[in-house]
Amino acid sequence: MEKTVMPMTRRLAGFIAGYNAGGIPSVVYEHAKVAFLDWLGVTLGGKEDPLVKKLIAYSELMGGNEQATILGYGVKKSLEQAALINGSASHALDFDDTLEASLGHPSVTLFPSLLALAEWQGRSGIDFLTAYVIGLKAAAVIGACAGLPHYMSGSHATATIGHLASAAASARLLELDEQQTLFALGIAGTQAAGLKRVFGTMCKPLHAGRASQAGLTAALLAKEGFTSAEDILEGPHGFFAVLKGEVKEAVLESLGKTWDIEKLAQKYHASCHATHSPIEAAVWLVETHRIKARDLREIKVFVSQLALDAAGKLAPTSGLEGKFSIPYCVVNAILRRDTGMTAFTDEKVRDAEVAEYMKKVKLELDDGLGGLEARVVLVDNGGEEYVKTWDILKDIPDLETKKRKIGDKFSDLCRAVLGDTKTRKLRDQVVSLEKLDAMPRIIEQI
Amino acid sequence: MEKTVMPMTRRLAGFIAGYNAGGIPSVVYEHAKVAFLDWLGVTLGGKEDPLVKKLIAYSELMGGNEQATILGYGVKKSLEQAALINGSASHALDFDDTLEASLGHPSVTLFPSLLALAEWQGRSGIDFLTAYVIGLKAAAVIGACAGLPHYMSGSHATATIGHLASAAASARLLELDEQQTLFALGIAGTQAAGLKRVFGTMCKPLHAGRASQAGLTAALLAKEGFTSAEDILEGPHGFFAVLKGEVKEAVLESLGKTWDIEKLAQKYHASCHATHSPIEAAVWLVETHRIKARDLREIKVFVSQLALDAAGKLAPTSGLEGKFSIPYCVVNAILRRDTGMTAFTDEKVRDAEVAEYMKKVKLELDDGLGGLEARVVLVDNGGEEYVKTWDILKDIPDLETKKRKIGDKFSDLCRAVLGDTKTRKLRDQVVSLEKLDAMPRIIEQI
Repeated sequence: MEKTVMPMTRRLAGFIAGYNAGGIPSVVYEHAKVAFLDWLGVTLGGKEDPLVKKLIAYSELMGGNEQATILGYGVKKSLEQAALINGSASHALDFDDTLEASLGHPSVTLFPSLLALAEWQGRSGIDFLTAYVIGLKAAAVIGACAGLPHYMSGSHATATIGHLASAAASARLLELDEQQTLFALGIAGTQAAGLKRVFGTMCKPLHAGRASQAGLTAALLAKEGFTSAEDILEGPHGFFAVLKGEVKEAVLESLGKTWDIEKLAQKYHASCHATHSPIEAAVWLVETHRIKARDLREIKVFVSQLALDAAGKLAPTSGLEGKFSIPYCVVNAILRRDTGMTAFTDEKVRDAEVAEYMKKVKLELDDGLGGLEARVVLVDNGGEEYVKTWDILKDIPDLETKKRKIGDKFSDLCRAVLGDTKTRKLRDQVVSLEKLDAMPRIIEQI
Repeated sequence: MEKTVMPMTRRLAGFIAGYNAGGIPSVVYEHAKVAFLDWLGVTLGGKEDPLVKKLIAYSELMGGNEQATILGYGVKKSLEQAALINGSASHALDFDDTLEASLGHPSVTLFPSLLALAEWQGRSGIDFLTAYVIGLKAAAVIGACAGLPHYMSGSHATATIGHLASAAASARLLELDEQQTLFALGIAGTQAAGLKRVFGTMCKPLHAGRASQAGLTAALLAKEGFTSAEDILEGPHGFFAVLKGEVKEAVLESLGKTWDIEKLAQKYHASCHATHSPIEAAVWLVETHRIKARDLREIKVFVSQLALDAAGKLAPTSGLEGKFSIPYCVVNAILRRDTGMTAFTDEKVRDAEVAEYMKKVKLELDDGLGGLEARVVLVDNGGEEYVKTWDILKDIPDLETKKRKIGDKFSDLCRAVLGDTKTRKLRDQVVSLEKLDAMPRIIEQI
């Protein structure tokens, strides 16, 4: 008998709607909780950004039912407004997670819609996490099929693939059947947009919020019988045809088998992603070899052209410029070890001791290094060289390290908004989120 | 001195924000009123479509301030909901206008956002029409630069270019300055999406509503200082780069000089666009040569492959199938002359006399004919041949003919919803719309 291969979008819909949650390993849920804690932290950290205030003002102009909480504001807006605002807030700092397979930042498009729906429907922690895990897998599969041609041609994949990922996750949480899920993907997919041209403007964070919102809307419409194409990804004049990409059988084979979530790369430093490999390599060297800062004669950092373009500022004069300066980020990490939000004040960047050490840094191009990869060479006063190469998107910490680091990052970001007591309580609740019977219990505190 | 060429998006923004309305010829306003009357008719005609009901139910789930009327329902929703719902309703019948330069249907993306804003702000008829004329010109210029590669690659240009056109028109009505208009185009442009894959589903009409909504939102956000790229069309990783297109100097030169609106092609027949040239040619022949139906021995219709694919049904058995049958449409036009909504009932399509005449029709491919072009050859019982070639997108009726035909079409569509008296009153009001001091006066009746 001939083997019939089911079309990609339908296979994906079958997985989203039909995969038995019992098959998801418990370690996957552990990773999902880390991702949620991280997302909560960066969302609260981004809540004061002017773009968030403008979106809130816009939502007030439109009005809407009070269905879902705007994090950090203690007010409720409509489901679609909450997804838009929380999603944009969570990408405002550019401090959120990256999944290489999804070609971007998945959590800022998944959690906002899921949180709004889970609050509205009073869903449990485990259902919320399951929908996230399924949505993340959908993002990884679509992203791996879209591939670099999609991203390099100009699409901001966080936005484009985020539309589909949010629809997938929302469909799962709303318990759509396979056909409805197929239409939800179709409704979201035909609205999938986002141009890299707008990087550096308020529209980049807006992309995350809009993707999350469009996915939520698509799932709600599909639930009520709204129709769309059944092969939005692979069909002629579909997503891959217009925005580049192709069906990859090997990628589809992974559905229900692997989960990708262990490859989710959180940011541990509140600076441009291109500064992360240099920071990690430098800290690894001084900690592993117990090198004292005052013993350093030279700090050589080799990076790719991409990293030089993005974070090559040699003499930053403000906190914001410090985020795009590999020399500052490396020196700050060696001297202070704290690379969170508080490391990027104007005062800390202009510090005299830091300036002295920055004279020892040599930042150089090495064409052999990939996108975010870096090689750091520390030379001590005796002339001894210590070398470490790092790739922040590949050298992902193990689960226990992630838990500790993200816990600290969350506390750092959340404390400034909610204070010590609430921050501790919230962190504890997220750690056992799979046991929570109703998501509103946690959301009402934020 | 060297001539400095201003980048395309900025030139467009300068035109949108700065063009003195006094320079718009009065005949352009005459055309704009015809377009509005036509849009009102097709929107009311589409109001009962299931997709419209689903969008209204969705808007009720979300809630919102009562700011703008849903046409034909006598209820108000938020600005963005009204733009979405009215826009989708107006494209539901696929009976709305086409502008070849804009690569699609411009009015269904322009009027919904403008009407919502004009009602909310109590704007005058002349301001409303001016914003439409400016938005239509923006659609024509962007469409002509995007060109066929944009449409042929899979983008539904009505949706993609519609996002930008609606932003342009909304920005004008909201009196944004040039910089804000530039950002409005940027905010809308990075959300511009719409795949031809979804043709034949509820998502096609949704495209019109979503484009209109996104443009309105973009203009409102830009007014409050939301930022985006300043060169969304021509910039690297921008609209043209991702969705195809290029700056064409000759097209830009037309800004403020020509208005394109006289090339707007309204539909006068409630059937697939590919049936329109055959209908027009056949009716022209029988009227010009005073040919009686009973004298016809043969009706030969030559069309393009595109038209055959779209409307080649030889033996339609329902009203819906009749819309995609060139033989039925031609015979119906010759026998009954009425090609509006009422010509497409099951009963009329299955009529015995019609069936007899359809046996005389020979539908054939002629590769020399363009997309919607057709050649009709009528042969009478004496063997005499009468030949007429027609291209519905090029052979646009003059203004007076348009006024009459669209007036009749509007009455046909509106009467079924609002009754005779209101229909007549509304028609009279639109005919002198430029004198209306406040748009709510007309909207409150619909």
